[in-house]
Amino acid sequence: MNFCSHCGAGVSLRIPEGDSLPRFVCDRCQTIHYVNPKVVTGCIPVWQEKILLCRRAIEPRYGLWTLPAGFLENGETSMAGAAREALEEANAVVEDLRLYGLFNLPHIDQIYMMFRGNLRHGQAAAGAESLEVQLFAENDIPWQELAFPVVAESLRLFFADRRSGRYGIHYADVVRDAQQRVTITRYP
Amino acid sequence: MNFCSHCGAGVSLRIPEGDSLPRFVCDRCQTIHYVNPKVVTGCIPVWQEKILLCRRAIEPRYGLWTLPAGFLENGETSMAGAAREALEEANAVVEDLRLYGLFNLPHIDQIYMMFRGNLRHGQAAAGAESLEVQLFAENDIPWQELAFPVVAESLRLFFADRRSGRYGIHYADVVRDAQQRVTITRYP
Repeated sequence: MNFCSHCGAGVSLRIPEGDSLPRFVCDRCQTIHYVNPKVVTGCIPVWQEKILLCRRAIEPRYGLWTLPAGFLENGETSMAGAAREALEEANAVVEDLRLYGLFNLPHIDQIYMMFRGNLRHGQAAAGAESLEVQLFAENDIPWQELAFPVVAESLRLFFADRRSGRYGIHYADVVRDAQQRVTITRYP
Repeated sequence: MNFCSHCGAGVSLRIPEGDSLPRFVCDRCQTIHYVNPKVVTGCIPVWQEKILLCRRAIEPRYGLWTLPAGFLENGETSMAGAAREALEEANAVVEDLRLYGLFNLPHIDQIYMMFRGNLRHGQAAAGAESLEVQLFAENDIPWQELAFPVVAESLRLFFADRRSGRYGIHYADVVRDAQQRVTITRYP
């Protein structure tokens, strides 16, 4: 951030009075520009024993497989956002969504909310951001070609829960360090 | 938003190519300025049979009671943010935090994450944003003087769960309409 989005003057990075963290503050109108984490909302679309994945047609991770997910919009609930992303990325209607996982990705300032739901009629087709979409049985999941650690973690939890016959709501940190090592911390 | 925070030129509200919603786009450098919901993270601090509440020393809802909560910061997990807010607002150390509720507030573009945890030694004292802090038994909760519907909903769920002996993880929409009517939709 270089300029105040309110008045157009320059901004300085400094700790406002009564605050404890540096913020961009306008040199003229004194507006404080807070920058906060973003929410990504997505889902695990299930049809019979299979999971719908999308192969990414966009960066980052072009060509790799992912669950339908994207940034939550203003005015939207996280569940509505998850359904919208499935429709946009996979022309998929997901029903009976339930909260499934909440993941902290503090290294990239994101919170992931993952739902699970039923893929209506088992039908899907690639949207603008997908090269292709495909239903995968557990044994066919392309684990080595998944786009993001949080997608792999969501799928691991899902298949473990399915085997146990009991679906929980999961909370975990999924952190990738500067050396690209991924650490997952699951909480009870 | 009136000016591009990157280059300082004016911005226009328009739908970028390939998008479906209007965004602020820079007239000069074409940077798209997305605005997304913010995450509020907080907790229900429990000591013996009592809950810690804080009386707000800031607007909005000055003078009303609330659970310690505030905006999640970049680089922070939601659980760490909840603990930080309890420390800042109530000088309270909360331990063994567990995810308890996830609430959509789409009318104000917020997602609330509420945790429950133990208040160490039952000790707390007003922080800069609190007029006072106090431990309340269920029968003494000032229901008519709570700051926000999401706080009331969190407490209702908590006491119901405590009576049942089984704590869940709750997901709900808490919406206040233009007539100030609050509608709560709980999902399974």
